[in-house]
Amino acid sequence: MTDTGMPSLHDVIAARPHVYRYLKPTPLYRYSGLSDLIGANVWVKHENHQPVGAFKVRGGLNLVARLSQKERNSGLFTASTGNHGQSIAFAARAHGVRATIAVPERANPGKVAAMRGLGAEVVFHGPDFDSAREWIMGVARARGGRFVGSTEELLIHGVGTYALEIIEELPEVDAIIVPVGAGSGASATGIVAKTINSGIQVIGVQSAQAPAMQLSWASGRAVRADMNTVAEGLATRVPFENTQRIMRKYLDDFVLVEDDAIEAAVLLLLDHTHNLAEGAGAASLAAAILLKHRLAAKNVVLVMSGGNLSVEQLRRVVARPGPLARAG
Amino acid sequence: MTDTGMPSLHDVIAARPHVYRYLKPTPLYRYSGLSDLIGANVWVKHENHQPVGAFKVRGGLNLVARLSQKERNSGLFTASTGNHGQSIAFAARAHGVRATIAVPERANPGKVAAMRGLGAEVVFHGPDFDSAREWIMGVARARGGRFVGSTEELLIHGVGTYALEIIEELPEVDAIIVPVGAGSGASATGIVAKTINSGIQVIGVQSAQAPAMQLSWASGRAVRADMNTVAEGLATRVPFENTQRIMRKYLDDFVLVEDDAIEAAVLLLLDHTHNLAEGAGAASLAAAILLKHRLAAKNVVLVMSGGNLSVEQLRRVVARPGPLARAG
Repeated sequence: MTDTGMPSLHDVIAARPHVYRYLKPTPLYRYSGLSDLIGANVWVKHENHQPVGAFKVRGGLNLVARLSQKERNSGLFTASTGNHGQSIAFAARAHGVRATIAVPERANPGKVAAMRGLGAEVVFHGPDFDSAREWIMGVARARGGRFVGSTEELLIHGVGTYALEIIEELPEVDAIIVPVGAGSGASATGIVAKTINSGIQVIGVQSAQAPAMQLSWASGRAVRADMNTVAEGLATRVPFENTQRIMRKYLDDFVLVEDDAIEAAVLLLLDHTHNLAEGAGAASLAAAILLKHRLAAKNVVLVMSGGNLSVEQLRRVVARPGPLARAG
Repeated sequence: MTDTGMPSLHDVIAARPHVYRYLKPTPLYRYSGLSDLIGANVWVKHENHQPVGAFKVRGGLNLVARLSQKERNSGLFTASTGNHGQSIAFAARAHGVRATIAVPERANPGKVAAMRGLGAEVVFHGPDFDSAREWIMGVARARGGRFVGSTEELLIHGVGTYALEIIEELPEVDAIIVPVGAGSGASATGIVAKTINSGIQVIGVQSAQAPAMQLSWASGRAVRADMNTVAEGLATRVPFENTQRIMRKYLDDFVLVEDDAIEAAVLLLLDHTHNLAEGAGAASLAAAILLKHRLAAKNVVLVMSGGNLSVEQLRRVVARPGPLARAG
C-alpha cells in the first residue's frame, strides 16, 4: 500500500482485527415493510448501531491502531463537524492517545458534547470546516503532531469491514446503496464488493442540495458546488481526489436525491424499522425509492450509515405529513 | 424445572444456544451525557436493536426450539397487542412452525403489519387483550394446538440471556433497572443477577398510570388496577402470578414513574443516544432520574427493553419542550 496505490480487499481484511478488538459486527436486517415499498428484498445495514452512531468509527480504530509510538506520543489532530471527529475521539480513547479536534464556531452542540464525552479536546475555530481544518493542520505542524485527514487510506480500509460483513451475511446480495459525504464508505464498499463479485451493483447517493461529489464523479473532473443540504453527513463542497478515483473505478451509479426525499425517508425508516437515521443514513432509502424499477425483485442492501439526527432536525421531520394511514 | 418450580440461572444458560442460533448479543454502551445527568456511570442495554425491536424475541426462540414434534405440527396460538406477538411470529418463522395470533380489534396497525410480515396469521377479535386471549385459547383447544401464555417459564429462561450478557460485559455493575409489563424481563434479570452476585441491585419500574404489577409486588397480594398508560409495554391490568412470585424474591425495589416522566425520558434518549425507545424502553431512564440520589457514582445499567414507538407517539413526544438548549 502506497500513497498513490488503490486500497484493496486485502487491506480491508487486514483491518479487521483492529476493528473487532473494540466493535462487534452490526446487524443486517430484512424489513418486510420496506421490501413491499420498493418491490424488492430490502435489508438495512445498521451502522447507526455503532457506539458513536456512525460507520466511521471503524476507520478511526484501524488508523489509531497503526500509529507509530512517536505519533501516539504526539497526539492526533483533526477537524470535523461531526461523525469523523467522534470516530477519532473514540479510537484515541480506546488506545490511550490524546486527540484535539477543531470544529467551526457554530458546530452542532450535541456532537461537540459527544466528542468531549469521549475525552477529546475540542477547539472552536473559524466560520466553517475548511478554516477549522487549515488552522488545526498548522497546530499539528507546530507541535509535531499527527494530522488526520478525512479520507486517509487507513480510514477507508477500516470502513470496508462493514461491506465485508454484508457480503458474508448475504452472499446473494444484488445491490448495495451507500450514502456519499467524503466518499470513504462508497469507496470501501466498491473495492470489497467488486473484488468479491463484479456482479454486485454498488450505487452511491448524495443530496441534490450538495452535489459536488456526484458532479465530479459524473464529469470525471473536480467540480465544486453549492452546499445547502440538511444532511451534514452528505455535505461536501470540495471533492476529495482519492475517493473520487476509487469511486470512478468501482461505482456502477451515483445518484442525487432531493433533501425533501431524504426527510421523507427518515420518517419511513422510523415507521418501518423504529431506527433513527440521520439524513445521510436515510439517503440510501431515498435512492432506492428513486431507482425502484431497476431494483425490482432484487436483493438490496441500504447502508444506514449513521443515526446522529438532532432533536431539532427530528422535530422538523415528524412535522411532515404521513406515513400514518396504513391498512390494518 | 417443573410448573411450580422457580426458574434458575441454569435454565437461562441452557437457553443460550437456542437464542444465539438466531440472535447476536446486543450492545451495552456507556453514555457520558446520561452519566452526567444522573451523576453515575450510566450504560444502556440495547434490546431495541433486536430484529423485532424488543427483548421478547429471546424468549420466543427458546420456547419454539423446545416444542415437541406434535406441537410443531399443530402450530402455535397466542394473543398479543404487540411485542410478544412479534416475538412468537419471529421464532415460529425461524423454526418453520405456523403461528396464529389474536389481537384486539383496535390493535396498533404497525405491529399487526410487522407480525404479518413475519408470516404469522393475525386474527382480530374482541375489544381488548383479555377477550382476544380467551378466544384464541378456545381455538387452540378446538384444533389441538399449542397455546402460548405471556409469562411461560421457557420465555423467562430465554429473556434471561440479556441479563447474563450485561453481567459478563460489565461484572462491576451495581444496579440494573428493568421495565415491567408482564414481568418476564425483571424476573429473569433478578434470577440471573442475584444468583451471580446478591449485591447487584435489581429495580423494576412500571407506569403510575398502570400500576397493577407494582401494587401487587408492594402489597404481597394480587391487585388489579386501572390502566391508562401511553406505554403499552407496561400496560398490565391483572398481575401475573408466576412473575410476581419471582419478583418478590429477587427485586430490591419496584418504583412507579408518571407517563409524563416516561415521555420526557424518550426525548432525552433520542437526544443523548440517538435511539428510538418505546415508552417501556424509556421507563428505566425515568426511574433512574427518580432514584438519582441513591444511584450516585454507581455503575447503572438501564434496560432499553424495546424501540417500537409509533410515528404518532413520536410526534407527541417531540412536541414537548426541551431538551434543546445545551451548553456548547
